[in-house]
Formats: sequence, C-alpha cells, structure tokens
Amino acid sequence: MNQNYSKFGEKFTCYSGITQLMDDLGKANHSDDENIIMLGGGNPALIPEAHDIFVSELQTLIDNNEVDQMLGYYDGPQGSEVFIEALVKMLNDHYDWILDEGNIAITNGSQSSFFSLFNLFAGEMPDDSKKKVLLPIAPEYIGYADQGLSANMFISVKPKIQDLDNQQFKYQIDFDQLEQTLKREDIGVICISRPTNPTGNVITDDELAKLDSIAQANNIPLIVDNAYGQPFPGVIYTNVSLSWNANMILCMSLSKLGLPGLRTGIVIANHDTVEAISRMNGILVLAPNSVGPSLLTRMIKDKALIPLANDVIKPYYQAKANIAVKLFNEVFGNSNAKLHKLEGAFFMWLWLPDLKITSEELYHKLKAKGIYIIPGHNFFIGMDDAWPHQHQCIRINYAKDEMTLMKGLKAIHQEAF
Amino acid sequence: MNQNYSKFGEKFTCYSGITQLMDDLGKANHSDDENIIMLGGGNPALIPEAHDIFVSELQTLIDNNEVDQMLGYYDGPQGSEVFIEALVKMLNDHYDWILDEGNIAITNGSQSSFFSLFNLFAGEMPDDSKKKVLLPIAPEYIGYADQGLSANMFISVKPKIQDLDNQQFKYQIDFDQLEQTLKREDIGVICISRPTNPTGNVITDDELAKLDSIAQANNIPLIVDNAYGQPFPGVIYTNVSLSWNANMILCMSLSKLGLPGLRTGIVIANHDTVEAISRMNGILVLAPNSVGPSLLTRMIKDKALIPLANDVIKPYYQAKANIAVKLFNEVFGNSNAKLHKLEGAFFMWLWLPDLKITSEELYHKLKAKGIYIIPGHNFFIGMDDAWPHQHQCIRINYAKDEMTLMKGLKAIHQEAF
Repeated sequence: MNQNYSKFGEKFTCYSGITQLMDDLGKANHSDDENIIMLGGGNPALIPEAHDIFVSELQTLIDNNEVDQMLGYYDGPQGSEVFIEALVKMLNDHYDWILDEGNIAITNGSQSSFFSLFNLFAGEMPDDSKKKVLLPIAPEYIGYADQGLSANMFISVKPKIQDLDNQQFKYQIDFDQLEQTLKREDIGVICISRPTNPTGNVITDDELAKLDSIAQANNIPLIVDNAYGQPFPGVIYTNVSLSWNANMILCMSLSKLGLPGLRTGIVIANHDTVEAISRMNGILVLAPNSVGPSLLTRMIKDKALIPLANDVIKPYYQAKANIAVKLFNEVFGNSNAKLHKLEGAFFMWLWLPDLKITSEELYHKLKAKGIYIIPGHNFFIGMDDAWPHQHQCIRINYAKDEMTLMKGLKAIHQEAF
Repeated sequence: MNQNYSKFGEKFTCYSGITQLMDDLGKANHSDDENIIMLGGGNPALIPEAHDIFVSELQTLIDNNEVDQMLGYYDGPQGSEVFIEALVKMLNDHYDWILDEGNIAITNGSQSSFFSLFNLFAGEMPDDSKKKVLLPIAPEYIGYADQGLSANMFISVKPKIQDLDNQQFKYQIDFDQLEQTLKREDIGVICISRPTNPTGNVITDDELAKLDSIAQANNIPLIVDNAYGQPFPGVIYTNVSLSWNANMILCMSLSKLGLPGLRTGIVIANHDTVEAISRMNGILVLAPNSVGPSLLTRMIKDKALIPLANDVIKPYYQAKANIAVKLFNEVFGNSNAKLHKLEGAFFMWLWLPDLKITSEELYHKLKAKGIYIIPGHNFFIGMDDAWPHQHQCIRINYAKDEMTLMKGLKAIHQEAF
C-alpha cells in the first residue's frame, strides 16, 4: 500500500486476521452463489421468533412516533440516557447489583469498546514505560489482536489442556504461568472472553473469581468480554453465574441477540472508566448510534428481553450445539480430531493434531472450494509461534442449518485427512 | 481522572471542546425543561416533510421484509455493497465522474472518517518524523481538534477578513501564508470543511481549485469535509460546484439530512485510501452499522434523494438563514457585532469585537441561564492564542424556531454588551 502512511496507518491497514474474517463474511453474506458454505464469521443466526419480535418493536416505534429520537437526534457521548436507565434497573433487579447511570456507557459495538479500553489502560504510558494487555488464556478473540496502538501490546498465557471423553477437550487457565507473567511483564489490564470466542469455553466461576482477585491484588482492571453471555444473549450451556464489581469492566453487545447490523456495545464499569469511554466516544465518533438503544429500551423496561434470551435464543443455540456435537462424532468419529467442549457461544473449535498442513493452508484450500472457516493461528494472540498446536485448530460457526454444517464438516474432513 | 491511563488515554479523555459540545447537546436534547434554549450543538432540524419520508422508507423496509439485512447481518468492513453501488451510480450520473465500487467506503459517521484519515496521513511517520494536518483556514470544525493520536497534529492558517455590507464579513484563505506554512512544516494532508462549520463560509470554486492544485503539487491528499454540501444535504446558498479527483478525499454524511442518530459517514477517495479505510474499519469497529445504508439505498437508486435535498432540505435551511439574518439585524443592528456571511450549513458565526469577557466566559454565563451556544475559541485549531479575534466569536445553531432563536439572540446581546 501507500508509502506515505503514518505508523498508525501502517499498523491499522495491515491485512489482518480480522480484516480477512470480515471481508470473507461480507462477500459470502452478499453472494448469490448457493454453493458457498459460510462457516467463518461470527454472524449470529437469524432466529425467526426473535427476529419477528425485533421487527415488531421497530414497527411499534414507528406507530408510536418514537422513531424521531432514533433517526433525528444525536445521543450524548455516553449513549442514550433512557436506555442506560433501563439497563441499570434491569441489571440491579436481576443480579442485586448497585449500578447507577454513571456505571454504563454505550459504544458502536464491542469492537469499539475494546479499542478504547485496551488503549486506555495499556500501550505507551505517560512515564514512557509500556504496559500490555494480559490474556489469561489463548486462543482468544481474533478481533483483539490488531487493536493495540503500540506494537506487541498483548501477552497471553498458554492454556492447560484437559482431556475429556468422546474426543473432547477443554482449555484451562494456567494460574502459575499467569502469576509469573504478571511478575515478569508490565501489565495494564487483563481481558478474557466468557464464553470464549473462538473455543466455546466458559471459564468456571472459580476461575473467574481467582482472576478477579489477582486483578485486584495487582491493582489493574479485569475486562470480561460477555458478548455471548448472560443475561443476554445468554448463550451459555453450563451452570455459571455473572458477577461485577468496580474493578471489573463487563462488555456486552446487542449483536449476538441477532442484531449485529446495529453495532451497539455496552460497557459496565466504575464511574471513572465510564466517563473515560464517554469522552473517547465524543472525540472518536461524536456519539454512538441511537438505533440499538431505541429498539430495545421498551423490551428491557418491560422485562421482555431476558425471557427472550432464556426461552428462545439460548435453546436455539443449545439445539444447534447438540447437532454440532452429533455431526462432529459422525464425521470425525474415526479420526483423532478433537472438539473443544461446547459450553457457550456458537463456535466449534476443532483440534486436528495430525494435520499435515497448517490451519492457514487448510483455510485457503477450503476457501477455494467455497467453504469458509477461520484458521486457528490468528487466535493465539500475544504468544510466540513455537507451539505446534497453534496451527492445528480451526473455528467453525455452527449457527447454520444441519445440512450446510454437515457438508462443511465433511469437506473439512476430506481436506484434513 | 485515573493516574493509570496511557498517553492515548490521557489525551483522549481530556475534557475537550467536542466533549463539552456533545455533553451539552445530549443533556439539552433530553431535558424536559422548556426554558432551555439550545443553540449549541450541530443537531439538524427535524424537517417534517423529510422526516416523514425517512419514516415511510423504514416502513417500506419492514413491509418488504428488507429489514433483515439492516438488523441481522454484518456488512463487510467497507460497508454495504448495494449502498455503495447505488452511490457510485448516482454520483457518476450527477457529476459525470468515473467512480467505481472501490472508490467509496462507509464509516460510523464523519467523525469516525476523520479519525481514520487524519491519523492515516499525519502523526508519527515510519521514519520517526512527524507530519501535520494543515487546515487552510481557521476557524475550522471543532471536532477535528482532539483527534490526533500525537500532540500538536494540526496547524492552521489565519484567514484574511473581507468586510462586507450590513455588519457582515467573510473569511478568505491567505494563500501566501498557506504556501509558507507548507514550506516551513512537514504536512501530511490538507483538510477543509465546505460549507465550513462553524462559520457558514463556502470557499469559492477558485479557492478550492487552488487548494487542489497546491495539494497535488505537494503530493499530499486534500480532504474536503462535505457534510453540509452537495449533492445531499445540499445546504449551500451560493452558486458553487462540487469536484472530485483521485487526490481528493470527499467526506459526506447522512447526518445533516436529518439522520444523525444513524451515524453513517461516506468517504469517496482513490482505491488505496478506500482500502485503507476498510481495513481500519475492520480493526476499529468490525463493520460500519447497516442502518443508514439500508434506509437510503432505495431512495438513491430511484433518484429520490437529490430532489429531497434540493426541494425540501435546502429551502428549509435557506428560509432559516434568512430569518437568522433578519433577527441578527434586529437584535444587533445598533452594535458593532458582525455576522459571517451565511453561505451554507446552519450556523451563525457572530464576531463581537468589543466583547469585554472571553467567548468562553460568555458561554458559561449563558449556560447558567439555560442558553447554550458554542464559544468560538475552540474552533481556532492549530493556531497560537495571540489573536484576540479568537475570543470574540461564538457559534449559534439557527436551525430552530424563530421565537427560540430571537430569545437566544436577545440574551446573547444582553450578556455581551
């Protein structure tokens, strides 16, 4: 590309994992080619029952002349006040928290939230030292990887691998390594996605509590990326709870409810951090968009959103997860492929220990046949390349119809073995 | 605020002019206090005839089941393909340009566009030199001021002041100073808003052509912030034309059509720059929101948007501008206050040469009485503080009803004289 870009320009225009992912997704979503099998991307399913409700909410906004705010007025940089009020009340009622309106800021989606948060707490510090974002476990969300304004802003900890029955496994946080990393490196903030994108891992309540106390002991905030978690969209299949405290920054999103086109992120944090996000919003984007907040305020006020998550969205993905496991067993049962235990979100994380090519080569081979997956190496953020495991995994979005998923898995099996 | 923020964090959480402006705007827009007179902010008017059309477009999307893409799918990082196609065709038809789909990228609003563009072309360079954004004229849009990732990233040129009849004046680009600045400083990109926010100035076709050739001669891009300009919203009252070439980056927005809540920006540029914006979109926000593109694609395809701009939106603001001038003459006719010639956008830029206090003090006095304006000093970006003129000006949004504007102007007169 152009030689006259700034350092920022060079870094942020690299053809990165997330650019590739979103490029593939955009092209495949808009393609008329029915032979394309799109198992990449993080697009949620269009669940008819949920979608109908959202469309009917939009209709109600029109019918009640409430669409004016959505179209015609800038929200403040913190985001829609009525939406924030409704969220505060809902979360306090549901979890017995003591949030107030100064504890929530709205952004143009979680990706925006993370850009602001990572670069707020890590990178070049006023005293010219450099701080990093610590990812307690890798693989971790691909979208983080390129967001640092300075180089090498992430460091992650290689996970322990717990072997499970039925060709399944689960990553666990290696707390000894984590503590050593905290001693060795200058860490500004810890971040973990729960459920984890790309693996479907849900770290246990104990693990989260331990992370929380480590963060507090080190006087650094803990970001929990809750995009797939409770109370909405609620795509968690294990029995875990949600916690928050003033040292924790809980990031949520409307996307995985089925509303990714709206680009609405929610940040729940202490007053200082929320004020910081608001000010960054003002400078970066003036104000977050008003559409997501306008569309969902009524449902949140009337306590209709959590039931939708629990009664429609979670069961939908739970059923998809069951099918995914069944198809995995059918297609890969006679191989030594392994599947990460599906505890949440809607991704299968396949580990192919005997893969003769790299996961990236597998991605290109499959893409040439119209089958889109995400190669796993991009998810091992802030880790050197020495662990062969990093090139033996792929991510598959299983929020598809059974036939498409079956075709895709068979094609993967064919290329991989 | 917190002591543990990065350099970026400290810079981007300063309580800046744009934060103040958006804070005021959010609070005043959501206040039930009828005594508040909101003349700050850049919120467009809710023009009933235009608003009804947008609501009816939204209804059509619902009725035709076309709302799925808007809610349920991520666009690619470049933005909605069908929207870009429609824009390309419209602009080529209207202006005889030869754009293709690689010449347009969508963002989450113009503020986002500028963050990406300024920091792409200016700031710290790979060779450790620093380049600046050159503003050919100040006062210039307040929202630019804090967007630089590095310190002192803007430099502007003090304008010539042309005295006009009826207590009016007009800023003109001082090209000699501009050329000297280009020789003295390391400039990465030139940027001008046309119509200019905050003054309502529209630089002439000759001035623009001269800027364009200077930019080309210096091998740096020229950004034209066309948020209020042609072909939509078309809020220009003088007879000027719109041009584009591969060295020019034309930034447009849906906001001033009356759709600021949607946060949709449009960047028209050469292929490299559009590719760069797309990649930055991917990393910063995954994808721009789908709402603005979904809502306006039909109108653009059916050639309904430019007539709406020409027949409804422009005449609406033209009438408001005429009222603004009339009220200015009534209220300030016996003073030495001056009004910048209203050539476009919907701001009055008042120059009060005999103001005994600074414009910032005037802002605070008025705000205490519930009257919101924007003090002028924040618009003199990249200029030292030596010119008294910088503290003698205020910006007023006149897209209000006559009674409100009259009350506001009288209150300003009372405090200022």
